[in-house]
Amino acid sequence: MLKHPFDEAIALAADERGGYTGQSHPAYGNMVGPFGGVIGATLLNAVMSHPSRLGDPVALTVHYASPIVDAGFTVHARAIRTNRSTQHWFIELSQGEQVAAFATAVTATRRETWQETAARFPQVPPPEQIVRAPVEPRWSWTGRYDMRFIEGGLVMSDANGDSAQTQLWICDHPPRALDFLSLSAICDAFFPRILIRRPEWTPASTVSLTTYFHADAAQLSGHGSAAVLGVACAPHFGKGFFEQSAEIWSAAGVLLATSHQIVYFKS
Amino acid sequence: MLKHPFDEAIALAADERGGYTGQSHPAYGNMVGPFGGVIGATLLNAVMSHPSRLGDPVALTVHYASPIVDAGFTVHARAIRTNRSTQHWFIELSQGEQVAAFATAVTATRRETWQETAARFPQVPPPEQIVRAPVEPRWSWTGRYDMRFIEGGLVMSDANGDSAQTQLWICDHPPRALDFLSLSAICDAFFPRILIRRPEWTPASTVSLTTYFHADAAQLSGHGSAAVLGVACAPHFGKGFFEQSAEIWSAAGVLLATSHQIVYFKS
Repeated sequence: MLKHPFDEAIALAADERGGYTGQSHPAYGNMVGPFGGVIGATLLNAVMSHPSRLGDPVALTVHYASPIVDAGFTVHARAIRTNRSTQHWFIELSQGEQVAAFATAVTATRRETWQETAARFPQVPPPEQIVRAPVEPRWSWTGRYDMRFIEGGLVMSDANGDSAQTQLWICDHPPRALDFLSLSAICDAFFPRILIRRPEWTPASTVSLTTYFHADAAQLSGHGSAAVLGVACAPHFGKGFFEQSAEIWSAAGVLLATSHQIVYFKS
Repeated sequence: MLKHPFDEAIALAADERGGYTGQSHPAYGNMVGPFGGVIGATLLNAVMSHPSRLGDPVALTVHYASPIVDAGFTVHARAIRTNRSTQHWFIELSQGEQVAAFATAVTATRRETWQETAARFPQVPPPEQIVRAPVEPRWSWTGRYDMRFIEGGLVMSDANGDSAQTQLWICDHPPRALDFLSLSAICDAFFPRILIRRPEWTPASTVSLTTYFHADAAQLSGHGSAAVLGVACAPHFGKGFFEQSAEIWSAAGVLLATSHQIVYFKS
């Protein structure tokens, strides 16, 4: 069976020093280097693959420390602390002698407790009623997603340019069953909010991205390859950085994950 | 001049190995061990004190990896990557041979750019019109803040128990000029949302907390010791963890910082 390109892109091979080696993948190229969502998923994959991992991912913070070159890299994950039901991780991705990206993560044994979602699942048309957005040629990774924008796509009319909000249905293209790895990448598949709010070109790149996983492994394995609803906004822009937040929902209105990031922008 | 207790609590002494030593402070005790906001500020202080620091804090993610004992600790900060205008940090706090807390941070040279705040500054009465909340005897750190709740204090009437939202004016007690260190601690000075939403006792503890600083050093130095407005909510509770978010505003309606955390809870 052919491997899905996402699985090829995040693939890690164990090396002889307890770490892993990987390689950037042309199907997930960004303007410069690889799509950040795939970098984050690769770092998380080092945890998911680790023989001493405890439980499911609960939190992941990825630092994009420098531009990543389209080439090979090494990844090393270590459990900094293992408790009875939670585990704290530090993961580094290096090219040559330099750390190009790193992450921290929490994994935990999830269990049933009281639950409530105060965030609001929006009323939106189903994905079948929306046309798939064209691939953005500057970013080859956009061809690896089926994106159907309800609001806030990349090319905005002037009338919509006063908001940084986006709503879209999104899934892997070709389809792939959702798991923590692909969910983490989808959390970073929202265009930089500055380009939605001000439809003119400006350099922008994520500096640090934190994802919280609200679904556990059983919920995700029941999801299959259906599209998820992504909602993104930007609470603040200023002094060279903006904050961007996103929610990822199942079509049934279950909040699967949220993410928050701080993004460098030029002007 | 007497040192402010906050400065005593986050004080670090350089050791001979390029690290620091510190000590938990009784004025900032929590139910078990020290108040997490002071732990985070202590980790950030290791960056602020570092001779090779570049610029102001932009992001701080603190992992509370295990309960911290009321005793001495060592702190070590290293710049993982230094770019032209940004720097990425990793900081560890150890007790004995074990890492009890760790953090990542981004510092950066801030500069003027286009700016906009989409988050909403709420209409609230000024702090002078609100009575200071009593100190919560289980948590000595609450005595080190002047907290004036507009909505969502710890003891809620049944009528308000259906929301996890809080609005309060908060400042150090006794007064202290706001800086990145005290601002980072205030971002963690919101009671666990589960106790606001369901006014019954349940164990809860922060696992990972991310703070984004939207103000730069010049803005903060002009702030003085005035109270800031804190707004907190919880987008989701479930499967043993909840997400909690907060905004910190100046009285003039400037968004100084935001924070997001994932919190363990028992029931």
